[in-house]
Amino acid sequence: MIYLDNAATTLHKPPEVAEAVLQAMMHMGNSGRGSHEEALTASRRIYETREILAEMFHCPQAQNVVFTLNSTEALNTAIQGLVGPGEHVVTTDLEHNSVLRPLYRLEQEKGIRLSFAEADTRGCIDYDRLELLVKDNAKAIVCTHGSNLTGNLVDIARVGKIADTYGALFILDASQTAGVFPIDMEEMHIDVLCFTGHKSLFGPQGTGGLAVCGNLEIKPLKVGGSGIRTFDRIHPKELPTGLEAGTLNGHGIAGLGAGAAFIEKTGMDRIFRHEQRLTRTFYEGVKDIDGVTVYGDFSTWMRAPIVALNIWDYDSSEVSDELSQVYDIATRPGAHCAPRLHQALGTAEQGAVRFSFSYYNTEEEVQAAIDAVRKIASE
Amino acid sequence: MIYLDNAATTLHKPPEVAEAVLQAMMHMGNSGRGSHEEALTASRRIYETREILAEMFHCPQAQNVVFTLNSTEALNTAIQGLVGPGEHVVTTDLEHNSVLRPLYRLEQEKGIRLSFAEADTRGCIDYDRLELLVKDNAKAIVCTHGSNLTGNLVDIARVGKIADTYGALFILDASQTAGVFPIDMEEMHIDVLCFTGHKSLFGPQGTGGLAVCGNLEIKPLKVGGSGIRTFDRIHPKELPTGLEAGTLNGHGIAGLGAGAAFIEKTGMDRIFRHEQRLTRTFYEGVKDIDGVTVYGDFSTWMRAPIVALNIWDYDSSEVSDELSQVYDIATRPGAHCAPRLHQALGTAEQGAVRFSFSYYNTEEEVQAAIDAVRKIASE
Repeated sequence: MIYLDNAATTLHKPPEVAEAVLQAMMHMGNSGRGSHEEALTASRRIYETREILAEMFHCPQAQNVVFTLNSTEALNTAIQGLVGPGEHVVTTDLEHNSVLRPLYRLEQEKGIRLSFAEADTRGCIDYDRLELLVKDNAKAIVCTHGSNLTGNLVDIARVGKIADTYGALFILDASQTAGVFPIDMEEMHIDVLCFTGHKSLFGPQGTGGLAVCGNLEIKPLKVGGSGIRTFDRIHPKELPTGLEAGTLNGHGIAGLGAGAAFIEKTGMDRIFRHEQRLTRTFYEGVKDIDGVTVYGDFSTWMRAPIVALNIWDYDSSEVSDELSQVYDIATRPGAHCAPRLHQALGTAEQGAVRFSFSYYNTEEEVQAAIDAVRKIASE
Repeated sequence: MIYLDNAATTLHKPPEVAEAVLQAMMHMGNSGRGSHEEALTASRRIYETREILAEMFHCPQAQNVVFTLNSTEALNTAIQGLVGPGEHVVTTDLEHNSVLRPLYRLEQEKGIRLSFAEADTRGCIDYDRLELLVKDNAKAIVCTHGSNLTGNLVDIARVGKIADTYGALFILDASQTAGVFPIDMEEMHIDVLCFTGHKSLFGPQGTGGLAVCGNLEIKPLKVGGSGIRTFDRIHPKELPTGLEAGTLNGHGIAGLGAGAAFIEKTGMDRIFRHEQRLTRTFYEGVKDIDGVTVYGDFSTWMRAPIVALNIWDYDSSEVSDELSQVYDIATRPGAHCAPRLHQALGTAEQGAVRFSFSYYNTEEEVQAAIDAVRKIASE
């Protein structure tokens, strides 16, 4: 099987990730609950993972790296926890429903005002337009670093500068990019970086989180056991505890730490270049095939390792099924939880077939995928 | 090392649990995201886990078993999602902060009214008193099945009957009991059962959830990607999707399924009897030692496998440290996130040393723990 659905989850992980999970399952107690060796092992392993991620994202304090179930929870925490009634939020057409739906919910329930930097037919946004929207008293910018549909990157340094200029908070959805692209929270004025563990950070499912810059106070989604200050009626505010009620996924976080360490050891740049080469090879191989329409902006190499396409007017699910059943190639069809971008691209009906690459894919696999697309297009 | 901190997390799991996690990490795609074999494997494994838990809890519909990061998230979801402004909630002094703090928060933010069935000095509640409180227009009863401090069980069949009589919702915290004690949601009138995966269900950390009876609509804590109905602005309401925004901890849930299958295969009753035997042996072995005070009601065998005690007026943390460092026995000292019960027991200052047992503990380990307590008490 050729696995090209890495934007959904990286199926192939460095072997040390599973090893770390296994070790954790054998030796890890409940972090922060007790002082015996197993509980301490848990605390240490989790703290090491905070440290390595803080370093990766240039988050000034390791304790400001908070773990959640997934990126969606991180985004809900940041959005629901920072935006108050009637406030203005600027976002983009590129967003995933994990950004859109929390915002729509606040629009409905708290009367927040919502503005969108529109995407053009290549899936690109206009930064001057974004700036104009932010200028209008925006409390926050919430935007993705890389579209999960087209792979287009957003220039987050520029967005961060806009946020900083107008005093808006910058909440970044780095679900598709954390681990592959350098992100500097301080330099880029990112207030909250939301990440998932099970994609390009090579961690297990059930991991993700948010890195919070400075002393930003975020109202938690949930409160409860904290292991500290039991007799307080209010959940402690200090991070990470303030946003981490209950027992963490210590086993998963140990694996995430191993994934991040693999990236550090291998070099983010080397991973990036390998993925870009595969993406570019695939793009060049399919873009001129009769009947194939590729979406997104390929004028730059700085893009997430994703190529979304359609073949003639074939339903994207049927193409993806054929790729799976006939060619044993795993891709993802449909809407990819990105409704506004599909509308901008004109693919709301058809969806798109998404090929997404990882460090563990090979040139041979990419060639096989090109051949399969060519065959389906010529049927 | 003798691990007697199973009420925090069961360190020793059936070997098939780690095996299932490992298999999932090698073969599982992103559930509900794509139709290739790896995505389908994920969906199937997760659905099987819903089924086995639904059967265990007598939850009428498997799709009403919803997965969360932990029990705290499940309780926050149920409490915040069901209790509206100004409503009356009845709970008990036995509760963990994962119940108390969400309730205190609603008290502060939504002006809910909160009543407590008090615990006596043995940690028992008075059911007539509870009924009286519920009679006063209670919207919901939220209570634990088993105290995580004393191990005392609550008679949930009786509480369920009270809830049913007065038309109150019954939200059960089964963190300490799911997997060891028979729970029948239908017969016991339990509307929402909140469970954790990593304790007596033998699952990995990062798993837990809620089982919801019938068509109860719970407002979700978070919304986002659902894999279905992408173009709706509102997150789909139907369960499990309605309460499961974002990518699930598929790897962990596969392990949880293996843990639940182990319980089914072994027999809950057999596990229960083994744990009770160990608990009783330990209790009988320590209760008459000079200087030892045991907390809780031991007049019945129907109790969670927990014995909390103090030795003279020694600080519980010091005792637990000595148990760990000198005797290599892992226990848990302090307040165990149960502030009201410590007040009822008169142990708010001292805390208590909690010994908690599991199916994987042995008589020899229990004897060693008794000997250690005796030695510390005679120092």
